[in-house]
Amino acid sequence: MRANGRETRTIWRQGDDVAVIDQTRLPHAFEIATLRTCDDAVRAIADMIVRGAPLIGATGAFGVALAMQEDASDGALRDACGRLEASRPTAVNLRWSLERMRGRLSATPASDRVDAAFREAEAIADEDAQMCSAIGEAGLAVFRDALAASGRSRLNVLTHCNAGWLATVDWGTALAPVYKAHRSGVDLHVWVDETRPRNQGASLTAWELGQEGIAHTVIVDNAGGHLMQHGEVDLVIVGSDRTTRSGDVCNKIGTYLKALAAHDNGVPFYVALPSSTLDWRISDGVREVPIEERSSREVTHMTGATRDGRIETVRLTPEGSVAANYAFDVTPARLVTGLITERGVCAASAAGLAGLFPAEARAA
Amino acid sequence: MRANGRETRTIWRQGDDVAVIDQTRLPHAFEIATLRTCDDAVRAIADMIVRGAPLIGATGAFGVALAMQEDASDGALRDACGRLEASRPTAVNLRWSLERMRGRLSATPASDRVDAAFREAEAIADEDAQMCSAIGEAGLAVFRDALAASGRSRLNVLTHCNAGWLATVDWGTALAPVYKAHRSGVDLHVWVDETRPRNQGASLTAWELGQEGIAHTVIVDNAGGHLMQHGEVDLVIVGSDRTTRSGDVCNKIGTYLKALAAHDNGVPFYVALPSSTLDWRISDGVREVPIEERSSREVTHMTGATRDGRIETVRLTPEGSVAANYAFDVTPARLVTGLITERGVCAASAAGLAGLFPAEARAA
Repeated sequence: MRANGRETRTIWRQGDDVAVIDQTRLPHAFEIATLRTCDDAVRAIADMIVRGAPLIGATGAFGVALAMQEDASDGALRDACGRLEASRPTAVNLRWSLERMRGRLSATPASDRVDAAFREAEAIADEDAQMCSAIGEAGLAVFRDALAASGRSRLNVLTHCNAGWLATVDWGTALAPVYKAHRSGVDLHVWVDETRPRNQGASLTAWELGQEGIAHTVIVDNAGGHLMQHGEVDLVIVGSDRTTRSGDVCNKIGTYLKALAAHDNGVPFYVALPSSTLDWRISDGVREVPIEERSSREVTHMTGATRDGRIETVRLTPEGSVAANYAFDVTPARLVTGLITERGVCAASAAGLAGLFPAEARAA
Repeated sequence: MRANGRETRTIWRQGDDVAVIDQTRLPHAFEIATLRTCDDAVRAIADMIVRGAPLIGATGAFGVALAMQEDASDGALRDACGRLEASRPTAVNLRWSLERMRGRLSATPASDRVDAAFREAEAIADEDAQMCSAIGEAGLAVFRDALAASGRSRLNVLTHCNAGWLATVDWGTALAPVYKAHRSGVDLHVWVDETRPRNQGASLTAWELGQEGIAHTVIVDNAGGHLMQHGEVDLVIVGSDRTTRSGDVCNKIGTYLKALAAHDNGVPFYVALPSSTLDWRISDGVREVPIEERSSREVTHMTGATRDGRIETVRLTPEGSVAANYAFDVTPARLVTGLITERGVCAASAAGLAGLFPAEARAA
């Protein structure tokens, strides 16, 4: 998608290295970070230089390719996959992409593994971009229907966190239909939840939408319910870090609260996801998805730009007050209107998912 | 309550002036601001040097006394009340305290109005402190029952925004039962919603609880639903800026989302309020309470302390992204377990309120 007026992806091969957009610097600076080693890739994931389940998966794959340049042995392959998998425990399609890399490379002689690894990582990246484009097309139809149902000329969409192209390789998941709609001439406006504690909405989603020239308004995470009570939201769309086989959705902390408000006000609540984030092994998301706890400093401190353009971190809480920082929550399937996947839209239920993904459902 | 180890109120007469705690400086500095004129009082309310419905009411009353020192004429009284009332349009007990001052002073010769105004303002402050103490006692009984029902030794309470003693003259509303419980030896822990955009939870509630030595954990506004899904919250208690005669509760933006989560998880949701915040003229809160919109800068920027102790403001959003800032939302009575008032606890319904306040209900 567009960054500074040019079409760009979030990750690409650059000779023997891998280039990524440094998302910790956005929205105040647009900088490219270079990953030269597997450790660079681990750090890029753990420090959230890259974030978003699909992009984490692609970065894991490229991380394996960087590891093979250092040492293409079976032991090094096992070790690299282990370290990459441990960098973000909740992201299911990191595990998926590492399993795919391990499977492909285990069957490849060590001497061919560097080339094979880069080819496979690039294939994963390309497939992700195609998958997101397909999600965008499926969601576009949902948006057109919602606009017709609203009886208005402009569609008001609310989104939480950043499930835009910065969270994927290109297009995004929850924002892919927004981009497809905008590029198709649908008039829309997006309410952007700021998404504490890391503010991915206020920083990344707002930046993405601004770069594409899409009308948007940033709100605090507390405001969505009020807007829905007053008819200001026609449709909610969010991404997913992990979706169970019964349609429970693990996504950024606070998603569940927006789903409750949507349900209470009759606002459709959609989740956009590539099938790589489906976890067929589990059913009850609230009980079975382990929720990552991150540093309390993300709650007690906040980073932004000062008036003179410096990036500064300030403390919000009194000295001595402790904080807890749960990264995700689970939205039960009963609150989800539909799942938008690269194969189309289905109900958030075991039957709905099995209808779109019969082979995977049977294997689970 | 305790500040720096000493018992303190939020507002008091100091000779010909009025002293208040400057709440814009907390939690990073504890400073006293001196109000010398009615304009100082208007600014203290508008700039949120004082905030919280009951304290705004008391400040309005003292503001009238300061105005009478400048000019004790009927015209000046009318003018002062008008300017003070316009300083925060949503706070119903500002209007209540100004009506009381106007009534008392209209019946007083101009020559006696300064003394009469200060006496009446101090009476309003004393009555508020007594009312909050009574709310605390009523809430203490609710807390003891909830602790017994939980089967645990420690009560986990979640609160939103700051309805502590800093929002009143003393004791607070939602936090009064917390203080009474703590001082009675009940073991409790408080989950403190940070409460964007102004962070009154992370700054003021956390500071108050720390000053009293009460165990607490700051969380982002997004986290409460997840905690309730996992049994980590025994009871939610919040304050109210305005409550309708049918029990709909207007409170800080985001309260509605926590009420939905409490309802979805069977967690009791209580609202503590002095009867001065009851608005008997209206019934349907969502449709009838006007919601104040504040500066979008509160959303796009955040203020805190830098590592070297300076107070600094940083921008969170990209240049060019706009923001909207709704200050309050309305929680429908159907989501409220009970109202805790200075006369006891009642159901959040017209019948419940009429039972505790029969004369007011009949007059409405």
